[in-house]
Amino acid sequence: MSDVPESHPRYQSLRLREAIVAGVDAGVTSPHGLIAHGRGEAYDYLIGEQTAPWAVTAIDAAAASLLRARHPVLSVNGNTAALVGEELVALSQAAKAPLEVNIFHTSSDRERRISQFLRQQGASEVLLPDGTTELPGLDSNRRFVHPAGILDADVIFVPLEDGDRCEALRRLGRQVITVDLNPLSRTARTASITIVDNVARALPRLISRVQQLIDDTNIDRQSLADAYEHEQLLAQAEARIRSGAD
Amino acid sequence: MSDVPESHPRYQSLRLREAIVAGVDAGVTSPHGLIAHGRGEAYDYLIGEQTAPWAVTAIDAAAASLLRARHPVLSVNGNTAALVGEELVALSQAAKAPLEVNIFHTSSDRERRISQFLRQQGASEVLLPDGTTELPGLDSNRRFVHPAGILDADVIFVPLEDGDRCEALRRLGRQVITVDLNPLSRTARTASITIVDNVARALPRLISRVQQLIDDTNIDRQSLADAYEHEQLLAQAEARIRSGAD
Repeated sequence: MSDVPESHPRYQSLRLREAIVAGVDAGVTSPHGLIAHGRGEAYDYLIGEQTAPWAVTAIDAAAASLLRARHPVLSVNGNTAALVGEELVALSQAAKAPLEVNIFHTSSDRERRISQFLRQQGASEVLLPDGTTELPGLDSNRRFVHPAGILDADVIFVPLEDGDRCEALRRLGRQVITVDLNPLSRTARTASITIVDNVARALPRLISRVQQLIDDTNIDRQSLADAYEHEQLLAQAEARIRSGAD
Repeated sequence: MSDVPESHPRYQSLRLREAIVAGVDAGVTSPHGLIAHGRGEAYDYLIGEQTAPWAVTAIDAAAASLLRARHPVLSVNGNTAALVGEELVALSQAAKAPLEVNIFHTSSDRERRISQFLRQQGASEVLLPDGTTELPGLDSNRRFVHPAGILDADVIFVPLEDGDRCEALRRLGRQVITVDLNPLSRTARTASITIVDNVARALPRLISRVQQLIDDTNIDRQSLADAYEHEQLLAQAEARIRSGAD
């Protein structure tokens, strides 16, 4: 962080803005990713820049799903690497879910830089598309994946994802968990579990919930998963944006 | 435009997105400008991506004000140059208002590139900060202006402006006209006339309204200016965003 004091009312927002610009400078984030970040800022502002109760319900369901999965995978793009790289590594270790790099604007260079970036944050292994293995239902530029990554996964965590990949994964019958500040987006609507929250607020909560469920086996994971009502949650999030109230 | 067909439902939004990314590639727009553009996209989406009746009222008042001014000036930054450079040049010629480059993240290199870019769009003269003349009330990085530009102007058109410069100009008693998709922003609230609309939709309308007022002297400019109610318009714009209705 450069010169913005922690006491500044917009500290968190400005810190994330600097992190994502630094991601572009480091070749990790695409310029288009900055525009997406700006959209997120606007929705977060309208939501009130707080984790809403219904987002907590979604985070709980996501934690339970990740722990019940046969093979959970965390999909990382240039925005999430820049914003919450360290948290994604921590979640990967806690949930025993490998990290796979899947970006929208294909670039092997950028994929490698994201992988290096995640390793600098402590990741021991990062899966990259191998240029041969394909995810069915995606266009030519973006179909390549790693054979042991999202293709083989039953539960996939893809925060800040684009709608096409989310839809392709759902068509293949995968459970998709996303984080998206726009409850009207195709990703938010298509995913199995949508956490309508800022990824920088949601990830620390998700990690601690996963850790708590591991530590305390008395917590009923099934009821946490069952408490999540997709359509109802999206409607609540939209109402918050539209009216400023829950 | 690369490969997005005009028939695409998101054509206009995608075209502007490509224009602003091209602006960064050309050294005209800053990476932070992309984040601001994304925020605008989100607000425009919630507004319905159409010019609302109250935005038309603001455009009419802006046209009348520009033509009644003793010395109107159009302030241009990296985002407006990339998105509506050609339209700003046309407005400058129609309203006989010089263009001045005033950017948020100071860089003489970028100021010169914006100036060159506007000349490529047909501008015959572009004012640049001279490194000596200062606008009172702004911090050290951003206080420099051209002596014949916004400092000497009575009416200043500053679309997509930051709140600080808008406030500084208002404190000096200048009339400030802005275009801002977020009716809650400091700029939107502080300006004298706020056009809550996408700058790429508003500029062509503003240019043709200016031309119409020049051509037809029977139109009452005073009543166009008087029809504009600042607080009421911002409230209408916010209601549209919050509820999706006028």
